[in-house]
Amino acid sequence: MTSERILDVIVVGAGISGLSAAKLLHESGQDVLVLEANDRIGGRTCNFYDKEIDYTDLGGAYMGPTQDRIYRLSQELGVDNFRCNDDGEAVAYNRGKWRLVSGQYPDTWNPFISLDLNHFWHLIDKMGKKIPMDHPWDFPEAEEWDSMTVKEWAEKTFWFQLTRDFITVHCCCGLCAEDKDLSLLYFLWYIKGCCGYLRYSSTQNGAQERKFVGGSQKISLKIAEQLGKDRVYLSNAVTCVSQDAGCVTVTTATGDSYKARYIIAALPPAMLNKIAFTPNLPSLRNQLNQRYPMGAVIKTMMYYERPFWRDSGYSGSVLADGIISEIRYDGSQTSKGHHPLVGFMSGDGAKEHCHLSKEERRDRIAQRYAILLKNDLALKPIFYVEKNWMEEPYIGGGYVGFTPPGVITKYCKVLREPIGRLYFAGTETATKWSGYMDGAVQAGERAAREILHAMGKISKDEIWQEEPEAEDMPALPFEETFLDRHLPSVSGFLRFVGASLFLSAMGGALWMTKDTLQRIIN
Amino acid sequence: MTSERILDVIVVGAGISGLSAAKLLHESGQDVLVLEANDRIGGRTCNFYDKEIDYTDLGGAYMGPTQDRIYRLSQELGVDNFRCNDDGEAVAYNRGKWRLVSGQYPDTWNPFISLDLNHFWHLIDKMGKKIPMDHPWDFPEAEEWDSMTVKEWAEKTFWFQLTRDFITVHCCCGLCAEDKDLSLLYFLWYIKGCCGYLRYSSTQNGAQERKFVGGSQKISLKIAEQLGKDRVYLSNAVTCVSQDAGCVTVTTATGDSYKARYIIAALPPAMLNKIAFTPNLPSLRNQLNQRYPMGAVIKTMMYYERPFWRDSGYSGSVLADGIISEIRYDGSQTSKGHHPLVGFMSGDGAKEHCHLSKEERRDRIAQRYAILLKNDLALKPIFYVEKNWMEEPYIGGGYVGFTPPGVITKYCKVLREPIGRLYFAGTETATKWSGYMDGAVQAGERAAREILHAMGKISKDEIWQEEPEAEDMPALPFEETFLDRHLPSVSGFLRFVGASLFLSAMGGALWMTKDTLQRIIN
Repeated sequence: MTSERILDVIVVGAGISGLSAAKLLHESGQDVLVLEANDRIGGRTCNFYDKEIDYTDLGGAYMGPTQDRIYRLSQELGVDNFRCNDDGEAVAYNRGKWRLVSGQYPDTWNPFISLDLNHFWHLIDKMGKKIPMDHPWDFPEAEEWDSMTVKEWAEKTFWFQLTRDFITVHCCCGLCAEDKDLSLLYFLWYIKGCCGYLRYSSTQNGAQERKFVGGSQKISLKIAEQLGKDRVYLSNAVTCVSQDAGCVTVTTATGDSYKARYIIAALPPAMLNKIAFTPNLPSLRNQLNQRYPMGAVIKTMMYYERPFWRDSGYSGSVLADGIISEIRYDGSQTSKGHHPLVGFMSGDGAKEHCHLSKEERRDRIAQRYAILLKNDLALKPIFYVEKNWMEEPYIGGGYVGFTPPGVITKYCKVLREPIGRLYFAGTETATKWSGYMDGAVQAGERAAREILHAMGKISKDEIWQEEPEAEDMPALPFEETFLDRHLPSVSGFLRFVGASLFLSAMGGALWMTKDTLQRIIN
Repeated sequence: MTSERILDVIVVGAGISGLSAAKLLHESGQDVLVLEANDRIGGRTCNFYDKEIDYTDLGGAYMGPTQDRIYRLSQELGVDNFRCNDDGEAVAYNRGKWRLVSGQYPDTWNPFISLDLNHFWHLIDKMGKKIPMDHPWDFPEAEEWDSMTVKEWAEKTFWFQLTRDFITVHCCCGLCAEDKDLSLLYFLWYIKGCCGYLRYSSTQNGAQERKFVGGSQKISLKIAEQLGKDRVYLSNAVTCVSQDAGCVTVTTATGDSYKARYIIAALPPAMLNKIAFTPNLPSLRNQLNQRYPMGAVIKTMMYYERPFWRDSGYSGSVLADGIISEIRYDGSQTSKGHHPLVGFMSGDGAKEHCHLSKEERRDRIAQRYAILLKNDLALKPIFYVEKNWMEEPYIGGGYVGFTPPGVITKYCKVLREPIGRLYFAGTETATKWSGYMDGAVQAGERAAREILHAMGKISKDEIWQEEPEAEDMPALPFEETFLDRHLPSVSGFLRFVGASLFLSAMGGALWMTKDTLQRIIN
């Protein structure tokens, strides 16, 4: 459809970020149109329905305390949530070695490894404190931390292979990228944006505490319903965005064109490459879009008749190397009584197995589960479904775009800098919970308010807004023992031992000297 | 224009690679059409004309021994070449320190630094020997070398800051990227593809030996002329490529569509993102295109009335940190008698100065030249021209696409793997002189022959062809002294000294023991 009507705002992308922006603008009385390249709403959230299992989330699903924006939005839309299972023992598996997990990290008999692991997550929170979330390119350590990969830093900093392996798996689970792919600064910035390591990695009281009843895509579907069908067009990939002093003209692959006063691009940075801009994008923006790749992930759901892992006291949570880097059992028993294990095939695991057929992947995963959960019942799933986000042409991967070394400090200052009438949303542009649904809402609403400010409808101070804590989802403090908080790193411990030995030796020497002197005097 | 005629081959991109492919196919009797997004032919080669200076190259320009493909093509098209100036002394400047360059590296009084520098380029050639050029993801060290940045490797391997700085500048000049941005494996593969470090870095007998009379873009213009105007369409950005069992349908931003039996994408990998493919690209290809960014470069030409640097015996060649990482004086005095210094603003230098106006850049560069060439005449240029490749929407940067860690080993096996009727050219897909005009020809002709093979017109063995050495541009061996070839690294030297000391001590001890024994016996 080509219309001569000049809209107030066109939003490109009907994920949570674009729809949050459109919702806010629509409610502010603006004439809004959302253009979506895919034939469905929801972006990186995606519900799957089947008579066998009812529904499941094949995309972003989790939510927890401090994610108050997505909570507020879901409540307003009437989308309920439920708490994920956190009972039982978690498992870690690396280099053929199976371990239970206690607290934050894998069990080990070696107290030095415990020191090393304990040091890891305290250190990233400590380093994170130095990073300004809204301008991580501008603080004293920025260049240094953005000049190395997480892997390089881990090799320099930690003493034990187990710690380094744990970090590798963490990058894989958290960002669907390998430690060797990621800028250290990006990694630290990301985890700080999740309110610190414990909030980021926990189920209870953390980022994985809850899921939405009916699937997270319901949020987008409900916003789209509110906006109405004449405000959200699917299968309309934007190919050209042309702006002049007066307005923006947007052309889609269908050959249609639309005009508006403003435009919001609510896409991952890498997807901006798909659009031709007139005038051309500035240099840094043009190159940034080439340097913010999407993670590699195939999300899988394996259904069993009963949660056999519970027989052995396992929660169903596993962190592992190999084909599946994280398993979770959210306790979301289906209406048919089946029990799904969510398996994240991410990072190199996804790259190495994406050429297989769905059936081959299912079989290899089931075989792996038999090892990880120590039970051959894993070999008898009753249903399997997966979504390969890497083959999505208009999303490009999941869960989020990340940056290799050198990008944050040299390019990211233009990440959400408006260009004329063009504004940027998308969870990658958030300063809190970037990469999550909550970040998508922050980014969308911020971009919408930037436009309301440009229209003269709100003041500059109103663009960035704090979100009050949700009463029903309080962020409780994490209880750490005195020991956990004050344990030294391995290096710190060795320095302490060294200093103690030195002081003892000095004391001994002084005592002997005193003794000798006294003998001479006497 | 939309035509129902089914062409044999559509080539996307009218750079040297695409045009080489089109030329070969056209000469083999195929019905070919080249579609170019820009309003000019030549891709990363670009002539500039002005009454003040006649012409200059604002893009790829150099050619030298072992680049026999581009030489053959230029000779066939009647494009002559001239030898670049190599007289006088080169300069290196880092951290405020000015040095002359002797042989391969900056002068230093410290023989240990000389050992370290000498070790650098012998080591990269030695490591390069292990890399299979056509499948660099598959050899024993592939994972290890692709898991680190060049910077990380340099820090682990070399003893002196000067060596590490020299490597940084080399990455910047050679690849328009920083050592922290680049996978070590990519860097080693790239230089091996240039037939080793000396061939890559030299003017005489190396990659910078010659330039084309009239500018390198003439090559593309002449091929286009041969093909005829009805076979090369400009300003036709391809937006969609849709293939089925029978043929490929290509749609452009102008709304036109064309059909062909085969298609060649002769674009940098990052630019493939701009095209929507039906069926969707496979996972690895979809993600590879997000992970192969173009380098950052603004090529500048500063013209002076006379080559004042020659008064001091300087060649005009400078390697430096800061705004300009490499200066060259190719001796290409213009028809007006002016003398241009080519200045490459690359890597971080380009990112940090691209927001300035052309005039501000000119002034800052002139000020820098006054320091680097120790002469205030540098402040009085008579003409300045530049090209910022980073803002090119359909090229994305220059000189070449590069890969951060983790991309070669996990993605690059699909770099030139055909997808149905779609074949891949572009200098990035070459296995020799990738990133150069010569690599563009290799890639274009190989892709053309892949299609001729698919058509049943040539055998599989004929796809990859060796190129005979050009008689008029022989690759002479490099003369190295015995010492250069056999000098140890700093570590090697220290090991030697250590071993010598140990052996001397052992010898002494033995001698003393013998002496003592003799005394006892006597």
